[in-house]
Amino acid sequence: MEEKHGQAIEKALQIIETGDLSTLPSVIEGMRAADSAGILAALPEDAWLVLFKAVEPGIASEMLTLVDEGVARFILEHLGAEEIAPLLAFMASDDAADVINLLPVEQAQKVLRRISRKDYEKLSELLKFDEESAGGLMAREVITVRSGLKISDAIGVVRTAGDKIKHAENVYIIDDQERLLGSIPLIDLLIEDPESVLDDVMNPDLLTVTADTDQEEVAAIFSKYGLYSLPVIDDRGRLAGWITVDDIIDVIEEETNEDITMMAGTGDEEFWERSPVKLSRARLPWLLTGLFGGIMSAMVMNHFRGSLESALTLAFFVPVITGMGGNVGIQSSAIVVRELAVGGLSIANTGGKLLRELKVSLLNGLVLGLALLLMVILWQHNLKLGILLGTCMFIIICWATIMGALIPLMLKKASIDPALATGPFITTLNDLLGIFIYLGIATVFLNWHGEI
Amino acid sequence: MEEKHGQAIEKALQIIETGDLSTLPSVIEGMRAADSAGILAALPEDAWLVLFKAVEPGIASEMLTLVDEGVARFILEHLGAEEIAPLLAFMASDDAADVINLLPVEQAQKVLRRISRKDYEKLSELLKFDEESAGGLMAREVITVRSGLKISDAIGVVRTAGDKIKHAENVYIIDDQERLLGSIPLIDLLIEDPESVLDDVMNPDLLTVTADTDQEEVAAIFSKYGLYSLPVIDDRGRLAGWITVDDIIDVIEEETNEDITMMAGTGDEEFWERSPVKLSRARLPWLLTGLFGGIMSAMVMNHFRGSLESALTLAFFVPVITGMGGNVGIQSSAIVVRELAVGGLSIANTGGKLLRELKVSLLNGLVLGLALLLMVILWQHNLKLGILLGTCMFIIICWATIMGALIPLMLKKASIDPALATGPFITTLNDLLGIFIYLGIATVFLNWHGEI
Repeated sequence: MEEKHGQAIEKALQIIETGDLSTLPSVIEGMRAADSAGILAALPEDAWLVLFKAVEPGIASEMLTLVDEGVARFILEHLGAEEIAPLLAFMASDDAADVINLLPVEQAQKVLRRISRKDYEKLSELLKFDEESAGGLMAREVITVRSGLKISDAIGVVRTAGDKIKHAENVYIIDDQERLLGSIPLIDLLIEDPESVLDDVMNPDLLTVTADTDQEEVAAIFSKYGLYSLPVIDDRGRLAGWITVDDIIDVIEEETNEDITMMAGTGDEEFWERSPVKLSRARLPWLLTGLFGGIMSAMVMNHFRGSLESALTLAFFVPVITGMGGNVGIQSSAIVVRELAVGGLSIANTGGKLLRELKVSLLNGLVLGLALLLMVILWQHNLKLGILLGTCMFIIICWATIMGALIPLMLKKASIDPALATGPFITTLNDLLGIFIYLGIATVFLNWHGEI
Repeated sequence: MEEKHGQAIEKALQIIETGDLSTLPSVIEGMRAADSAGILAALPEDAWLVLFKAVEPGIASEMLTLVDEGVARFILEHLGAEEIAPLLAFMASDDAADVINLLPVEQAQKVLRRISRKDYEKLSELLKFDEESAGGLMAREVITVRSGLKISDAIGVVRTAGDKIKHAENVYIIDDQERLLGSIPLIDLLIEDPESVLDDVMNPDLLTVTADTDQEEVAAIFSKYGLYSLPVIDDRGRLAGWITVDDIIDVIEEETNEDITMMAGTGDEEFWERSPVKLSRARLPWLLTGLFGGIMSAMVMNHFRGSLESALTLAFFVPVITGMGGNVGIQSSAIVVRELAVGGLSIANTGGKLLRELKVSLLNGLVLGLALLLMVILWQHNLKLGILLGTCMFIIICWATIMGALIPLMLKKASIDPALATGPFITTLNDLLGIFIYLGIATVFLNWHGEI
């Protein structure tokens, strides 16, 4: 597979170089759309438009929906409205809406003025919804049959409508006001007696969402109930569209990316972004927060200058204190955030969760405190210093673990994305508090014993 | 929905308390299996078995496949082989294999001895495969029809086989040696002329995997091609089973959990684990690595004791140097790891990737170096110290960013999970090198200028 693709890419580059583009479409002929899109994306930027314009519009439109956002944006920026409009006719309504959403407002309006009235009505309906909601995910091409019909009539409807709809698995039954009554799996159309009335054999107990449902919630419903598709209804119970599982896989990957970029503190970095300036701008706010926190740490250390001057060795252990506080904080916060995300943890059972983390932190604090005590005695031959550091380590492990678990829960309660609690902001806060606790205790210790 | 569940849980607890369990099944009557499983998991541990044993075996077996691993393990530990065996008859083969895999070897053998010969053959075939491979995901219940039959005959086959198979979307066509020739979507059975021969209308160009394909690769194929199901073939091209998209969503969530636990350094922590000792044991190796690294940092600082004694202020900036090195390192490594995971980045185009990160790091290093210079001048009124710290910050930002991008790529090349590069191991290494670079440069500076 990989090798075949490599050859196709090379061949495409050769053809583009010679200038006779008539044979260019043959390079991706017979390939799956996802593979052609892969070839396109692997070519250098200046070849994207050449290949895109050389293939038939049906294939071009498929490639456009499958390449990543960065490539799609580039291609769309270099096409006129009169070139974009005909491509939409080949797309399912949800894919067409995604393309419109990538265009600047003026260009989008120009394109919409050039498509058929029927397509326009379908599309403008979808464009009203937030891209990250059920409405932004759904397609309007659904197979519907009227209540009261027989199985054999429903089969007739599928015959005429079916070949336009990929991945159809269910047929939806609606009443004369288009309200959704139930569904019947395609396989049941084959199995049931053709003379049966739909209403007697359909599944009337459907899971549904409304168009404003958040995409993360939609994905959780698919995952929990093992769905392949989910109908979207409006406030009067009418069928507005349906969401299919292939789009849900994209949603899950998108949400994972969001969690990971949040955890890494890279802002809303887009994976397709290639401009270093934009990437730098996405990451800098987090880093400046960290820098500011670092200066605060330096000020805290300056505050304890007296203690550090009388026992410089204390300074050597600052990195281990901050480092460990950061490590255990990320451990407990990442676990809690993930449990909140996959839905296994609700605010209701947080008590048990916190208790569990408390127990873990007591255990870890004990082990790590003793380990540090031992290391310090072996290295510095100083029992007092060992006891001081071991005690501080224990306190900081417990503190950072509990904070790590508590902060995402509090953010969730306040309807803020709990993943924020895994980012550099919290690590920086933990550093600061860790140094304060450590040098504070050390100073009390020094004042008491006179030396360490 | 939530409210209804809350009421059901309360009612279940009341019934269990009164001791008359005959009405217990009514609590979850008419609910979707996933909802009953949710009710079960929300009950206190000692009620799990009571509810589980009170409901019919069909419902019990559905609940068992849907609750999380921790609950399932608990229930299975408290059942005899003679109670487990009948439950398997209600399950699809892939779910039954998952249950067997949760049992201790001896108990598994006892259970297998009690099931029907047909089920045993299906199951023992599946149990050979690694749980994280295509073989571990696939079910053996597929609708197959022989090559050469007509559409109308295929419909007959679906009529008899179909109601045992949930979510059927395709029918597979095999030759007389059971080799897979192609597939036909159910909807095409309705649309095509009943007199057509299958071979003329089927899709002969199928994507397939073998049983030993890693589940992560299987998930990538589903995602790339937008599949709902994927046939698994053996080395002679015979159809061994099929994988459906609902299982793929579980795989994607599992792999995400792995990446996040790796990034957080919590070992292979399982989300359902409730024993603090086991959780502590999963997290401790990472923390001990960090502790050891911290001691090494302390030793590096001790090595530069002379410089720190002559300019204690240097010590105050150690946390900002280590903190920022850690932050930028996690940023670039998390992005590279994620790009490797979603398949957008192959080893082939790593050159461009590293160049991009280099540019970003130069920009960020410049901004953060200047910001630190400014802060130090404002706070300490010391231009020399500002220049020293600004320069060190610049070097460390560049160094840690490039390392963050390079290390996951090298791990990938060496076939080690690149997500390891986002964990505490790398942060600790960055801390150590950061302190060394910082104090090394400061010492050279001190020897040159005599003071800071």
